[in-house]
Amino acid sequence: MMARPNPSDVQTVATIGAGPIGAGWAAHFLARGYDVRSYIHSMDEEVVFRKILDTAWSNLEELGLVEGASRDRLVLSDDLALVMQGAEFVQESAPERLDLKQALYKQLSELVAEDVVISSSTSGLPMTEIQAECKTADRTLVGHPFNPPYLLPLVEIVGGEKTESEAVAWAKEFYQIAGKAPLVLKKEIPGFIATRLQEALWREALHMVANGEATPEDIDIALINGPAPRMAFQGQCMAFHVACGEGGMATNLDQFGPALKLPWTRLEAPELTQELRDRMVEGCNEIAGDRHFEDMAAERDRAIVGVLKAVRAARE
Amino acid sequence: MMARPNPSDVQTVATIGAGPIGAGWAAHFLARGYDVRSYIHSMDEEVVFRKILDTAWSNLEELGLVEGASRDRLVLSDDLALVMQGAEFVQESAPERLDLKQALYKQLSELVAEDVVISSSTSGLPMTEIQAECKTADRTLVGHPFNPPYLLPLVEIVGGEKTESEAVAWAKEFYQIAGKAPLVLKKEIPGFIATRLQEALWREALHMVANGEATPEDIDIALINGPAPRMAFQGQCMAFHVACGEGGMATNLDQFGPALKLPWTRLEAPELTQELRDRMVEGCNEIAGDRHFEDMAAERDRAIVGVLKAVRAARE
Repeated sequence: MMARPNPSDVQTVATIGAGPIGAGWAAHFLARGYDVRSYIHSMDEEVVFRKILDTAWSNLEELGLVEGASRDRLVLSDDLALVMQGAEFVQESAPERLDLKQALYKQLSELVAEDVVISSSTSGLPMTEIQAECKTADRTLVGHPFNPPYLLPLVEIVGGEKTESEAVAWAKEFYQIAGKAPLVLKKEIPGFIATRLQEALWREALHMVANGEATPEDIDIALINGPAPRMAFQGQCMAFHVACGEGGMATNLDQFGPALKLPWTRLEAPELTQELRDRMVEGCNEIAGDRHFEDMAAERDRAIVGVLKAVRAARE
Repeated sequence: MMARPNPSDVQTVATIGAGPIGAGWAAHFLARGYDVRSYIHSMDEEVVFRKILDTAWSNLEELGLVEGASRDRLVLSDDLALVMQGAEFVQESAPERLDLKQALYKQLSELVAEDVVISSSTSGLPMTEIQAECKTADRTLVGHPFNPPYLLPLVEIVGGEKTESEAVAWAKEFYQIAGKAPLVLKKEIPGFIATRLQEALWREALHMVANGEATPEDIDIALINGPAPRMAFQGQCMAFHVACGEGGMATNLDQFGPALKLPWTRLEAPELTQELRDRMVEGCNEIAGDRHFEDMAAERDRAIVGVLKAVRAARE
């Protein structure tokens, strides 16, 4: 096990990539008061990179910068070795090509100090494959953001076969300190968690359009005005838990369980076993803690009011 | 075809039901400045009804009441005939039991003036079945809200076999005037549109919990911090369209179309035919109109900032 820096002592972060994800990450880390060293493949990409950074910055200012945060603390270069000097954490957002990433991680194993965690923004490639040719694969992992990465807090973390679990724990702590909402996956699964949920919704939408049941506009109207403003505050599990009052998720599953057999989507539900029921119920009870459902409903409503006002203001 | 009142002339709305949906609708219509006549099955339900109304009211005040809106303009009674007197629109939110609704609609056909549209909040029963025993079925339809109905704007509208299309058009116009976001369905499909999208996501979530890939807490963290804050402003179609820059949805489908075959959810995607591709592309182009993707991305980012701040404030 490596003696890594304390996550809260990290001052210098390196990023790789000039696209919306790479430049977006640079913006995020700058806004959180880090020194950022960014690698772009060619200095021709500088204009695009800085444009993304500047667009992100005005939003980050609105959300609130950390004291000392400044775009002047960016070093931008097309020299990978130079960029990696002094890096205490690396966020890689190179193009989504396995051969390219494998070669890059081989190179990084020589350029980046061995105790430094290297995290990939990949949304589709398994770390087990990315790290295949990397000599120091134990500190490489996936840190998958949601676009735009300077605004949406989620980072899904998962290692490959060669990743040390301690590196995963380190990354979780670091991302938390760096102002993100890290989510450590239990398994290396295609699409991670958030994309799987989004993809199920997306494919059902495509089915509806294919069958003449809805237009793209219908889909978007339904989401924006229906589940989304609530979901920005309360996930689907707690939405059902709170909506069922005193009985919570147990009532939801015991009462509406049979509805899982109804053709309300083309996705077949899993068998509602006692074990699944208990996992859902216990999970929701844990999230709720000692909060009463009425207080959670009131909090949800206040949040929805705020979200609707924010959306209204943005449209004006 | 009936000569219905002009939707903008409606002053008196009747509601049926004492639960969160029924009482929630009453709150919404009161906040929009209507006279509201609400039927509850028994006066024993009055306390619950008024509690829901009062909770809703403080949020509605925060969102902004229409001039003249007042809770004093509510008539609450367990006398169905009395409640229906003078009603120019009826929103029914009785329990979700087919036999009960069928009997109710039979009764309503005698109590409610023939030119008045009767709309059901049902989330699962087809209007074709609900209206089976109603003598004036032509003016009955589904107006399905999202919970809480006093906050979330969506109303999904669809008629049954006997419903006049003119009644559907009338309801759409009325809901719009009454401050909702109406969405007329092209077909009577189980789960309508919003619930189908949500249900696909939900069943994928259940699969993940069943397989030990995620806990309920993981699911909610992923949604709240990932897709949801964006989706409160921008639906999934336009999210992909704008994220793909100049090429929009065409680029999304042409480039990432093969990913629809990947196991990123347990729901199989439909065949990406040329026709489906074109429907998606044309639909998104229509929504975008002459707006440039960079302006839409900037607007999206401003909206996300506002949504995140609203959620943060609600948690404090």
